[in-house]
Amino acid sequence: MSFELTILGTSSATPTLERHPSAQILGFQQNLFLIDCGEGTQLQMIRYGVRAHKIERIFISHLHPDHCAGLIGLLSTMNLNRRGPELHIYAPPRLREMIDAEFSCSEITMMYPIIYHNLEFDSIRTIFEDETITIKSIPLEHRISCCGFWFIEKKSAWKIDKTKIEGKEIPAPAYNILKQGHDFIAEDGQVLNYKELTKPNVKPSSYVYISDTIYLENIAKQLEDVDVLYHEATFLDDLKDKAISTYHTTAKEAAQFAAIANVKRLILGHFSARYNDLTPFLTEAHAIFLETILAEEGKSYLIENKEED
Amino acid sequence: MSFELTILGTSSATPTLERHPSAQILGFQQNLFLIDCGEGTQLQMIRYGVRAHKIERIFISHLHPDHCAGLIGLLSTMNLNRRGPELHIYAPPRLREMIDAEFSCSEITMMYPIIYHNLEFDSIRTIFEDETITIKSIPLEHRISCCGFWFIEKKSAWKIDKTKIEGKEIPAPAYNILKQGHDFIAEDGQVLNYKELTKPNVKPSSYVYISDTIYLENIAKQLEDVDVLYHEATFLDDLKDKAISTYHTTAKEAAQFAAIANVKRLILGHFSARYNDLTPFLTEAHAIFLETILAEEGKSYLIENKEED
Repeated sequence: MSFELTILGTSSATPTLERHPSAQILGFQQNLFLIDCGEGTQLQMIRYGVRAHKIERIFISHLHPDHCAGLIGLLSTMNLNRRGPELHIYAPPRLREMIDAEFSCSEITMMYPIIYHNLEFDSIRTIFEDETITIKSIPLEHRISCCGFWFIEKKSAWKIDKTKIEGKEIPAPAYNILKQGHDFIAEDGQVLNYKELTKPNVKPSSYVYISDTIYLENIAKQLEDVDVLYHEATFLDDLKDKAISTYHTTAKEAAQFAAIANVKRLILGHFSARYNDLTPFLTEAHAIFLETILAEEGKSYLIENKEED
Repeated sequence: MSFELTILGTSSATPTLERHPSAQILGFQQNLFLIDCGEGTQLQMIRYGVRAHKIERIFISHLHPDHCAGLIGLLSTMNLNRRGPELHIYAPPRLREMIDAEFSCSEITMMYPIIYHNLEFDSIRTIFEDETITIKSIPLEHRISCCGFWFIEKKSAWKIDKTKIEGKEIPAPAYNILKQGHDFIAEDGQVLNYKELTKPNVKPSSYVYISDTIYLENIAKQLEDVDVLYHEATFLDDLKDKAISTYHTTAKEAAQFAAIANVKRLILGHFSARYNDLTPFLTEAHAIFLETILAEEGKSYLIENKEED
């Protein structure tokens, strides 16, 4: 498993009895990323067993309340629970002003560091990178500045072939050298040839989150090797005019986006409160892109590159 | 029935799987009052069938997130649902600053008027009054400026005695005059004597909400004729030191408060997340004040003066 995605909210601006405001958890290695944090996110996290202290980075797509009104409660609970480690928040620049006003009026002093990273909205940009992952922001077009997010696992170019090292004594420092495609020379002068001991690594897994936007074909064309795409589908296509005027996407358009981006699977979410039965969203999308499912709250999805052995 | 109280949240600062942040609905005649509005209040309202458009006045005890973080979402939903009538909010002065910052950063333009009424914290004060009700704020002592609220139904001093008006022709304008304890002189000169046609009215119903405070005996002594008291009971009495240092009350103290205020019934709420089993709260309170119950989310309580016929 590379990523584990847990959906916490599937509603659009107005919640319903079954659907909560936008939020999802992306598990990666030992850490959790929180993507959007609508009202009630900390309650949904409790309901579905997500541990708040494991959240290392939070990504806020835009500053409408259904995507960020749960932050003040979550940050405050982390404070009460004596969080120590710093928390990184990637968000539109004015989020900090909002949070500062809330904490100032509540007279709450934060006991752990919050590091704000301002999103920019002109192009796809790398906003975080280490040896295991690259995270990019994707500019969207909504009524207010808005970004999607792209999570790309990093893998070495080569992986150790277990069948080929059987019976051989490989010094511990050799593994990383070999995986990078270099020969390793041991202290006794013996040469370990990387081509003899490794095989090419498969492509890394990747996940894209597209929230609150008009249909953006231009962005779809810039994505590649995406395993799972979550795309907002606020309306069905018979309300396309309403989708355009409110800067949202229809299920049909989300499927078109998935087809052009050539993703492996599409998850639809962010459904308008006007719909009780969501089956038509699936029907509409399936006509264009068969590997579509509807986001379900509390459900977790494995995101892995199927070519992996 | 005079009031109908529906509990939406019974947790203290940190919510749990079963307990949500503070909020309750007080139904009075055709209107609803919302008392506190912690995160997720609009979701709890949907869950328990409370209609947001019927809310006429909102009362916020203090600006900690577990008492007001749900406001931005609720006000925003009212906006999306095209609320027309003005909304009155009674709250500490800085609430407006908080809400303004949130709406400014979210770039949301409110389409209905919000009228802010600033609470004061020096004494019990009347904050609203019309011909049917008096609403007062009660100064509390918490880590931040905080008020409780007191809702007192108004009744005329006299009520029409149906057995005495049988067979008599009473002009419509006479009723209100008689109920105020005045004789009515009809156009033909006939005098209707109020003492002959009415009987003394019973005392009105009243409800008191006391949230987030250290134990305040002095306030208990100032209350009178309270039918139902909701009092916070964050801790059991073995954590009295913690209650004092965090400016909260224990179940035992809440019961003492109820006994001194001579209320008819006590409802305990605002329980710390550390307690799974709440039975000891009831045991502790019952030793001092028998008419105590524990607040249950989603449950409604009739508040009426039992002397009423």
